[in-house]
Amino acid sequence: MKNNTITAPRGFLAAGVCCGIKKSGKADLALIVCSTGARAATVFTTNKITSAAVQVSKKHIKSPSIKAVIINSGNANTCTGQIGIKNAITMCAETARVLQIANRKSQIANRNILVASTGIIGLQLPIKKITAGISKAAAKLSASAKAGLDFANAIMTTDTKPKQAIRRIKLSGNQATIAGAVKGAGMIAPNMATTLCFITTDVAITKPLLGKALKAAINNSLNKLTVDGHQSTNDTAIILASGLAGNRPIVSQCPRYKKFTKALMGLCDDLARQMALDAEGATRMFKVAVKGAATKTDAAVACRAIADYPLVKCAVHGGDPNWGRIICAVGSAGVKLNPNKLSCKLGDIAVFKNGKPTKFDRKKASKIVSQIEHVITVDLGTGNCSDFCYGCDLSKEYVTINADYHT
Amino acid sequence: MKNNTITAPRGFLAAGVCCGIKKSGKADLALIVCSTGARAATVFTTNKITSAAVQVSKKHIKSPSIKAVIINSGNANTCTGQIGIKNAITMCAETARVLQIANRKSQIANRNILVASTGIIGLQLPIKKITAGISKAAAKLSASAKAGLDFANAIMTTDTKPKQAIRRIKLSGNQATIAGAVKGAGMIAPNMATTLCFITTDVAITKPLLGKALKAAINNSLNKLTVDGHQSTNDTAIILASGLAGNRPIVSQCPRYKKFTKALMGLCDDLARQMALDAEGATRMFKVAVKGAATKTDAAVACRAIADYPLVKCAVHGGDPNWGRIICAVGSAGVKLNPNKLSCKLGDIAVFKNGKPTKFDRKKASKIVSQIEHVITVDLGTGNCSDFCYGCDLSKEYVTINADYHT
Repeated sequence: MKNNTITAPRGFLAAGVCCGIKKSGKADLALIVCSTGARAATVFTTNKITSAAVQVSKKHIKSPSIKAVIINSGNANTCTGQIGIKNAITMCAETARVLQIANRKSQIANRNILVASTGIIGLQLPIKKITAGISKAAAKLSASAKAGLDFANAIMTTDTKPKQAIRRIKLSGNQATIAGAVKGAGMIAPNMATTLCFITTDVAITKPLLGKALKAAINNSLNKLTVDGHQSTNDTAIILASGLAGNRPIVSQCPRYKKFTKALMGLCDDLARQMALDAEGATRMFKVAVKGAATKTDAAVACRAIADYPLVKCAVHGGDPNWGRIICAVGSAGVKLNPNKLSCKLGDIAVFKNGKPTKFDRKKASKIVSQIEHVITVDLGTGNCSDFCYGCDLSKEYVTINADYHT
Repeated sequence: MKNNTITAPRGFLAAGVCCGIKKSGKADLALIVCSTGARAATVFTTNKITSAAVQVSKKHIKSPSIKAVIINSGNANTCTGQIGIKNAITMCAETARVLQIANRKSQIANRNILVASTGIIGLQLPIKKITAGISKAAAKLSASAKAGLDFANAIMTTDTKPKQAIRRIKLSGNQATIAGAVKGAGMIAPNMATTLCFITTDVAITKPLLGKALKAAINNSLNKLTVDGHQSTNDTAIILASGLAGNRPIVSQCPRYKKFTKALMGLCDDLARQMALDAEGATRMFKVAVKGAATKTDAAVACRAIADYPLVKCAVHGGDPNWGRIICAVGSAGVKLNPNKLSCKLGDIAVFKNGKPTKFDRKKASKIVSQIEHVITVDLGTGNCSDFCYGCDLSKEYVTINADYHT
């Protein structure tokens, strides 16, 4: 069977183990290693409160070569003060020690390690369990598909299934691979979320171009996803490039750069859709496309207003073509609109046109809204700008998960 | 028994009847009459899409004397184009005709009538049923407490109970009364909602001062209420003053004006709390108080970000003192904050202080969060501005109501 996990690109080993953070006994510690050292790039949350892991990784990403990423789930290491920072650094140092990664002066090079955490806010990490777990993970490192899947499982919190994607492209005659694993579920919103996103690739590319490609891909995928209107304190996307694909290195925005970025965008879009469908309690997803906006910002704001509106989310859950709630959401979004040109489509059915309800086939519309994915299109009738975003339905299960998940 | 309904102030008659808009057979047409003519003031939704009733009432409120308000529930008369406007005017005209209200030229004075609608968006009103219902309502007009209660029942949609409040004050030796009835339930958010709010008073006061007092009262009550982050297309608050209390007319911002405004604010605050507790699926409410903000806007934005955050609402539903979600909501609100001074209290328990979690009594905190109402206080640590708002929990019942309420 083909390896479609993050260990598929050349140069990567991974592992996922249980170290005892989660009471459930599920896997909670994950490791990726690129022993030759990878070019790396990151996108972090813009929440003003950030996890200790985010703060530490923001410093470590300045290192020209990243050897490993260590991730724990079950505890966010957020709002944990100086002890939290110390623990995040310890996770890096222990990973470097176990992997025998040293700098030129033979000192443990924890700056070559990135760290990420996800889970509950405000509790200190059980750091002894984690350091013991790091040895356990290092002993299990492998380039197998199973190791990649173990990794994808170990980063989950309330996710119901691992979420992975892969893209294979030809670059200067050689096959290059891009693979990703994400965790999502709750707190997914504008500009990422309790989202952790790890991407490996063997493409040879400079660090600045890798960063540029990642930013573009995330902006058009994970950053288009909104589950509950907020971004978490821990959101992190990391891409590691081993450079072992044998392609002529990408050093400019050449056609090869564009081919790589396009594949990376496709991969991230795939992951974002998987996250929407595996959002807490979600049973279906939808895309909101707003056009005819006066400004790009208006288009983006209107998209989010619709996708985050609980009444729209409930209507989608009920398979109800309730366009009135969509119009209500748009009207209160504070964006410029022309009430006499405002229009709305569910899939390809016009339900509201030039400010007036249309006579449409309710059964057909209901079928569209009940699909696993459908598109809501709104034309504001005021300009030429457009944007889109992804949302999901709101179910009783969401409430169960979030009212019962006690601190 | 004392009359504590909107017919308590001198000069008002009311009725609530069933005219057949709602399939359930519940009351759906309500009427208030002030036959001597009332000074009136209104506050309308700021949603850019407004109901036909809002558009018509916005014109009619310019009339110096309002004789009656006609309200239907079960159909919002929104997104209904010119037919909708015509129907809203017909409701006013029919009310004027039945009540034999004519202007100096003996023409039917529909401009002395206000109209309000609430319910589903996008369907035309069954206007024949409504005109028949208006005669029925007129025949039942009474100053009794039962008539007032019938009125409060007839304006409801998904509300589970009528919501009324009363205040009695002494003004220049005479007793004056202020009474109100509201409907709320869903779509309640920044700047009113599917909120209809009707207030009667017998205070003698000029129209401009009545408007000023209403605006102040609504801004500190209904406009502080957020159930799902959006305001509806139909939100309307109307106050009618018969001037029959016998007080020396209020013609300036004198102590009597202040006394009246204070009582009106108390009444509206009372109604807002009742609405929060009767919000769709709500089992408890909470007040969010943000202080230490750099600007008033920052304080308001932070309040709303916390109160609208589904994960906070779910935590309150579960009686879980999950302050991490509160901090996360604040961090992503885009307001200025000092991470080293940021603090949070649940009731009087400090759960997060100067950027660090405190050791607190979880059982006691859980008890506070499980109360029918509690206060979440957040100090941003950056300035001296403050604001507050009211929110409610998010339950499975909310999803049931809004996924099953089909168009």
